[in-house]
Amino acid sequence: MSGRRKWLNEVIFGTDTPAGKLFDVFLIWAILISVALVLLVSVQEIAVRYGELFFILEWIFTGLFTIEYLLRIYCSVNRRSYVFSFYGVVDLLAILPSYLALLLTGASTLLVVRLLRVLRIFRILKLVRYLRDANLLARSLWQSRRKIMIFYAGMLVLCVIFGAVMFVVEGPANGFTSIPKSIYWTIVTITTVGFGDITPHTVVGQAIASLAMLIGYSIIAVPTGIVTAELAGELGRDKSSYRCDNCSRAGHDSDAEYCKHCGYKLEQVE
Amino acid sequence: MSGRRKWLNEVIFGTDTPAGKLFDVFLIWAILISVALVLLVSVQEIAVRYGELFFILEWIFTGLFTIEYLLRIYCSVNRRSYVFSFYGVVDLLAILPSYLALLLTGASTLLVVRLLRVLRIFRILKLVRYLRDANLLARSLWQSRRKIMIFYAGMLVLCVIFGAVMFVVEGPANGFTSIPKSIYWTIVTITTVGFGDITPHTVVGQAIASLAMLIGYSIIAVPTGIVTAELAGELGRDKSSYRCDNCSRAGHDSDAEYCKHCGYKLEQVE
Amino acid sequence: MSGRRKWLNEVIFGTDTPAGKLFDVFLIWAILISVALVLLVSVQEIAVRYGELFFILEWIFTGLFTIEYLLRIYCSVNRRSYVFSFYGVVDLLAILPSYLALLLTGASTLLVVRLLRVLRIFRILKLVRYLRDANLLARSLWQSRRKIMIFYAGMLVLCVIFGAVMFVVEGPANGFTSIPKSIYWTIVTITTVGFGDITPHTVVGQAIASLAMLIGYSIIAVPTGIVTAELAGELGRDKSSYRCDNCSRAGHDSDAEYCKHCGYKLEQVE
Amino acid sequence: MSGRRKWLNEVIFGTDTPAGKLFDVFLIWAILISVALVLLVSVQEIAVRYGELFFILEWIFTGLFTIEYLLRIYCSVNRRSYVFSFYGVVDLLAILPSYLALLLTGASTLLVVRLLRVLRIFRILKLVRYLRDANLLARSLWQSRRKIMIFYAGMLVLCVIFGAVMFVVEGPANGFTSIPKSIYWTIVTITTVGFGDITPHTVVGQAIASLAMLIGYSIIAVPTGIVTAELAGELGRDKSSYRCDNCSRAGHDSDAEYCKHCGYKLEQVE
Repeated sequence: MSGRRKWLNEVIFGTDTPAGKLFDVFLIWAILISVALVLLVSVQEIAVRYGELFFILEWIFTGLFTIEYLLRIYCSVNRRSYVFSFYGVVDLLAILPSYLALLLTGASTLLVVRLLRVLRIFRILKLVRYLRDANLLARSLWQSRRKIMIFYAGMLVLCVIFGAVMFVVEGPANGFTSIPKSIYWTIVTITTVGFGDITPHTVVGQAIASLAMLIGYSIIAVPTGIVTAELAGELGRDKSSYRCDNCSRAGHDSDAEYCKHCGYKLEQVE
Repeated sequence: MSGRRKWLNEVIFGTDTPAGKLFDVFLIWAILISVALVLLVSVQEIAVRYGELFFILEWIFTGLFTIEYLLRIYCSVNRRSYVFSFYGVVDLLAILPSYLALLLTGASTLLVVRLLRVLRIFRILKLVRYLRDANLLARSLWQSRRKIMIFYAGMLVLCVIFGAVMFVVEGPANGFTSIPKSIYWTIVTITTVGFGDITPHTVVGQAIASLAMLIGYSIIAVPTGIVTAELAGELGRDKSSYRCDNCSRAGHDSDAEYCKHCGYKLEQVE
Repeated sequence: MSGRRKWLNEVIFGTDTPAGKLFDVFLIWAILISVALVLLVSVQEIAVRYGELFFILEWIFTGLFTIEYLLRIYCSVNRRSYVFSFYGVVDLLAILPSYLALLLTGASTLLVVRLLRVLRIFRILKLVRYLRDANLLARSLWQSRRKIMIFYAGMLVLCVIFGAVMFVVEGPANGFTSIPKSIYWTIVTITTVGFGDITPHTVVGQAIASLAMLIGYSIIAVPTGIVTAELAGELGRDKSSYRCDNCSRAGHDSDAEYCKHCGYKLEQVE
Repeated sequence: MSGRRKWLNEVIFGTDTPAGKLFDVFLIWAILISVALVLLVSVQEIAVRYGELFFILEWIFTGLFTIEYLLRIYCSVNRRSYVFSFYGVVDLLAILPSYLALLLTGASTLLVVRLLRVLRIFRILKLVRYLRDANLLARSLWQSRRKIMIFYAGMLVLCVIFGAVMFVVEGPANGFTSIPKSIYWTIVTITTVGFGDITPHTVVGQAIASLAMLIGYSIIAVPTGIVTAELAGELGRDKSSYRCDNCSRAGHDSDAEYCKHCGYKLEQVE
């Protein structure tokens, strides 16, 4: 690996050097601004008035992200693994829609253009690279994934049954036009969102709705309980994995200087 | 028990053999597809256009579930206990509505037919058989059932009182037409669902509604706290899986030095 | 205290004798039915059709509760303390509205009669006597009352400020007619109830509303965290207050038979 | 520092003397009443009818708070640090709008006057001084700020993507007029507020909305888990208030035998 490539690698992938930090800060701002542009251009009035300005800015950012993408490929240690990694795909997706829009201008319908314009919003996924500290949260969620999947499966069964019952009780006259729509209503109700676009009108329907709400209000405790118990465990493990050199017992607080079991001086905790 | 019956039992009830696993996967897909059919046929347009196709598919699945039911009876070790178990009843309920619909075609009204069609949705309960891993969650909920019942009783008292007060304050003019309806509104509000089909219009009513919301927002902590504390305990018990060398019982704390069951010195915990 | 009074005291206040249990079950049903009557009579159609029947039933229950109240006064050990206790006041309130309605028939307006009719709903508070097992929950809530009060005070400050800001941003044209109404809207939003009777229409208003929702979504964690931590402590204290006779250390599990610190046989845990 | 200034300092800043307590109680009432006045005067009818009375009361409270502010400056030990402290700024803000309104009467538009009137509501921040006991809650929130920021960042990414998808799926015809508005809808939905001012009308939109609700219903567990785990730790640390005889530092675990700070044998913990 040449010296220049190595230096580029440190700047672009690393965060330890001043240049690397500067690059990251610059990139985060570029992502945020380009996402904001996509958001703003979706507003009718802004698109009409500032359309051209946004078109130019759009191509500046696409150019920047293209240069970034090419540099990342150039300087990465294992090019193939970068291109097919999550971040490599995201970096490609951040520039692809703009070039596709260019290619498809002639033949394509308006819908495709609009879609490509919106797809550029996935640039925000480039931010995920900077959420590195999220791994305690992610680990907790990951370790409780089986329990959460089972919870979702159970909730699905519940929602289907409630939906079918409400379809029979309320019927199409009160907005429950089909079982899928009734299930949608049940999910809206059991998650305590409560849009109010469909509401029960019969007394029996309101009684069943009350039951669904009370159940939803209580079972919110289940995912909370799962994640809390897992997080508490994770936090505990973080603190207490160091063992005393004398009695080799763990579980010391992060501010402990002496072993709480044998009084021996602890080397380093945390 | 004959060899064939034993083999069938292993395939149908067991999950250890490849054939048993294949059977389970096949059955889960059959359940999901047949439930999806019931959902789709409840949509007016689909029922009109594809009515005949759905009718044929319906009978194919009814046939499959009938064969499954008869085989389960045939090969179960204790037939009587299977038939009257939760799963036996669910398996029967999964096929009964279709046959009842056949019997009642002549005399029955449209409502009965519609009801029978919807009842087929309870086939989804056949899935419960595969939620075996849910028992940590179920155990936590089961062990906290008394506390949750008391919580519900307390909430019922609260909702009745709030409902009566809102009925007096707002009155029929603002949609609070009776105390039961006011209680329905209170449940909608206190569980933070908030449909918005009935809302307080007077200043006093809005002040009382605010109080109800703040209470609901806080007491959601109670079921969450109960389940979290219980789950944390369950997880803790799960974790300390080390078994005493003398009495081979697990569940010791991580700082235990002697077996809490037989007093034998523990080698190493954690 | 005479023998008859003592026996009555055991039946009415006690729950250990068969007669006492029977009395409690009978009373709970009487409370539930009489509350259901008050609920039903508030429905216009039912009141019109079954008015007379409900009038008679009402007086039967008033009579029963009057007898119960007099018997409780007669047989209680300390009459004065019973009459002025929470339960004594509730028992009096359960019968007072009916007699007041009788007294005020001549002169009173319809509103007073309706109010007195609704006040009878407070009979449901007689049920609180039977929620004795709620004390673990109540203790947890009671011990965290200071923290919850502070949480409410902080939330009040937040709601007032958000309400004032929304009043300025949205103004009377979009339904935010006054600051108190804006505060009502903020409470509806921050508790995630979301009726939808008042909603922000300006872009700035929607941005501020989004902020309020995200804050509300997060700070729900605070009461939950308080109560969970308190409940976990309560559950822990319940389990582990017994101390080993040999080394007098506590913290044993409820199923422990030997001290986990010194291996000494534990007398009795739980 | 003169005797009078010292005495004033004790009364105004202190809470230990009877005069200091009386001053605090008086001030809290003055804050609450003056805030209530601002709330009430924002109601059209009240402003019209009692306008003059409120004008007089307003100036009485402005006078009181001005005297309080001047006295606080006069008697504080370090005047500069008080003036620029959070409380000093809040105390100034509590009186500034009234004087500004006086200055700007001639030239200013109605909007500025209305704004200044509403700004007086920030007087409620003077109450923060009395929420001193909130520091356990504040500390827990502060220590989990990084995790909560990451949680918010992740949620932002989620909301932007969901918003863009819903904008494409539902389109302007169903109320999703722009991506920012779609993001507003996503926040309303994912936080389970659910106003119902914008609702999905297409089947695909309702399916995506259901997904957003279920995700929102589950990830509410994350901030709850973070704060609960943190609070439980804080409460645990609070509990072990026993101090080492040698170094008089507290915070030992209940099963500690030696001081974790200096290794000194602990007499008795718990």
